[in-house]
Amino acid sequence: MTPSPRRSAPPGRPRPASPLGLHRVIDPPGVLPQAAWQLDASPAIAPDEVRVRVDRLNLDAASYRQMRETYAGNPDKIRAAVLDIVAARGKMQNPVTGSGGMLTGTVEEAGPDSPLGLEPGQRIATLVSLTLTPLVITDSLCRWDARSEQVPCEGHAILFARSIAAVLPGDLPVPLSLAVMDVCGAPALTQRVVRPGDVVAVIGAAGKSGSLSAAAARRAGAARVIGVVPTEAEAALLGEAGGLAGEIVIADARDPVGLADRVAAAGGPADVTVVCVDVAGCEGGAILSTAPGGTVIFFSMATSFSAAALGAEGLAADVTMLVGNGYVPGHADFALDLIRRVPAVRALFERRVAS
Amino acid sequence: MTPSPRRSAPPGRPRPASPLGLHRVIDPPGVLPQAAWQLDASPAIAPDEVRVRVDRLNLDAASYRQMRETYAGNPDKIRAAVLDIVAARGKMQNPVTGSGGMLTGTVEEAGPDSPLGLEPGQRIATLVSLTLTPLVITDSLCRWDARSEQVPCEGHAILFARSIAAVLPGDLPVPLSLAVMDVCGAPALTQRVVRPGDVVAVIGAAGKSGSLSAAAARRAGAARVIGVVPTEAEAALLGEAGGLAGEIVIADARDPVGLADRVAAAGGPADVTVVCVDVAGCEGGAILSTAPGGTVIFFSMATSFSAAALGAEGLAADVTMLVGNGYVPGHADFALDLIRRVPAVRALFERRVAS
Repeated sequence: MTPSPRRSAPPGRPRPASPLGLHRVIDPPGVLPQAAWQLDASPAIAPDEVRVRVDRLNLDAASYRQMRETYAGNPDKIRAAVLDIVAARGKMQNPVTGSGGMLTGTVEEAGPDSPLGLEPGQRIATLVSLTLTPLVITDSLCRWDARSEQVPCEGHAILFARSIAAVLPGDLPVPLSLAVMDVCGAPALTQRVVRPGDVVAVIGAAGKSGSLSAAAARRAGAARVIGVVPTEAEAALLGEAGGLAGEIVIADARDPVGLADRVAAAGGPADVTVVCVDVAGCEGGAILSTAPGGTVIFFSMATSFSAAALGAEGLAADVTMLVGNGYVPGHADFALDLIRRVPAVRALFERRVAS
Repeated sequence: MTPSPRRSAPPGRPRPASPLGLHRVIDPPGVLPQAAWQLDASPAIAPDEVRVRVDRLNLDAASYRQMRETYAGNPDKIRAAVLDIVAARGKMQNPVTGSGGMLTGTVEEAGPDSPLGLEPGQRIATLVSLTLTPLVITDSLCRWDARSEQVPCEGHAILFARSIAAVLPGDLPVPLSLAVMDVCGAPALTQRVVRPGDVVAVIGAAGKSGSLSAAAARRAGAARVIGVVPTEAEAALLGEAGGLAGEIVIADARDPVGLADRVAAAGGPADVTVVCVDVAGCEGGAILSTAPGGTVIFFSMATSFSAAALGAEGLAADVTMLVGNGYVPGHADFALDLIRRVPAVRALFERRVAS
């Protein structure tokens, strides 16, 4: 009897791999890996997968902040929390914030059918979230002091056919490249949205995604970039990064009226407002700081969908609100180019990465 | 001594009213009414406020569904839940979903400085969310059977200077107008986004916001409207509304791969996907059903910001994702016009309102 080419694989043979990683989903079955509670992170790869020897995780800022605050900064408890999550879920996805981060490592094995073009030995960063990346940690995080979101570690991770990974550039330090790639969707989308002559407000402009977004707004031809920061210290930092933000505003982004008043005084309201701070409750202020017909781009994972939707309605604000998509074609190259060419951004990043 | 014009009002005199309603915020102080835990719903109005004698609430679908499921449909418990929320918060904002709804009533008193142009005796609907509308219920909801989100009730509500209210049209039944106005942001934004020749997928096309959005897509010149519904019964309902959706697809929107496959088979992927179902977990399917360079409009209050942002990144999907803004200038008139001119939408609405 000739087997039908469409019959399912007999028991004992591996199921065909899905480019989206559906074959790695354990619970609940049938959902995408990002939506799954638990993934199969076993090291054997399908023909279109890649296994990476992990050397560093870069946790999402909102996720790290949540754990740091929950455990009052206690390193043992923070380490245990990350280990428990990865052991239970087969991926690093904070159940409270829903967010993950990214990783670096070295390609260990690339399946013959992988379309990613990677070869064993290459040093790479993943540009898809840890929330959907099968992951095993094998060193108990013994080298992580839990004082920053950059986590040195040992273990392995799996890339699917439709994952995105970038080979780390040779001309930049790895922690710097990693920090840049982690937020590279923000400047790429900002550049796409900003038009020449726009007034752009960047909330959290002295941060990583914020400083890159400010630089991207400048490159897109913004007439004025208003950098919003929470403290005098951040203002000083941004001020030292001369020219990144033409106007620097100190305001609590969770205070909508105070924020909007200060942005207006600095030349606003904004045609485009970019939200890059990882604290909750900034939706109303961003909306109120934006001119009618303008656009708010929410990059913070602390954004509440309902607060944004109902906030705009409640303020009778005719603004376009974008969910910041972490993927824009060419985003990593664009962000790395900004880091190479805009010394102010590089200086800010180097201070962030070092501290 | 001449009092300074800027000194604060002496005790006993009312504080000046804010057009945004800041003077009604009790806890926490200084936030916008939508973000507040508790509002002051006392009936005395400021010179720019309006007091409305409430006759009906229309709860947000996600909020009603959450309460119905939590209390297993028990009417006494659902009524008690709504009464407790309004008594504690001074507004109807479901603490779980964060959402509210809208109301109808009769203008009781309009302050001399109100810019809304309302007069006592006019029958109106509020077009700002209940999440920011000071509200008192005085009849214990004794006339509500708790079997639908339309809640007959007595009480009063307060409109601020920047609130939005529409006088109910004389040519349409009130429950119909109310149901239309509750979702009128969806068709208005859909019409703005869709371009002639687009393929448009509407997830939840037999529902209220979905059927209006499908009609709006048609009016905007969509070449093909794919209506996605969860069941055979909904498909029959949509089929009877001849011509609203050229293609009808039965799929579980929470199953990304299944949804995308079926939308593709019906002529997709979509240039514009409109998410109008009030269930969680539809982000991945909507993204996966949308063509590269296309747009997803999320109108469901059950949308998770992080699931959308990370989902697109995880799928390496270059799609624009919009937070559905409930306010677009002219939205109520546009939606009422669709109801008057598109018999299929009106028929669907009348069945929804009656059932």
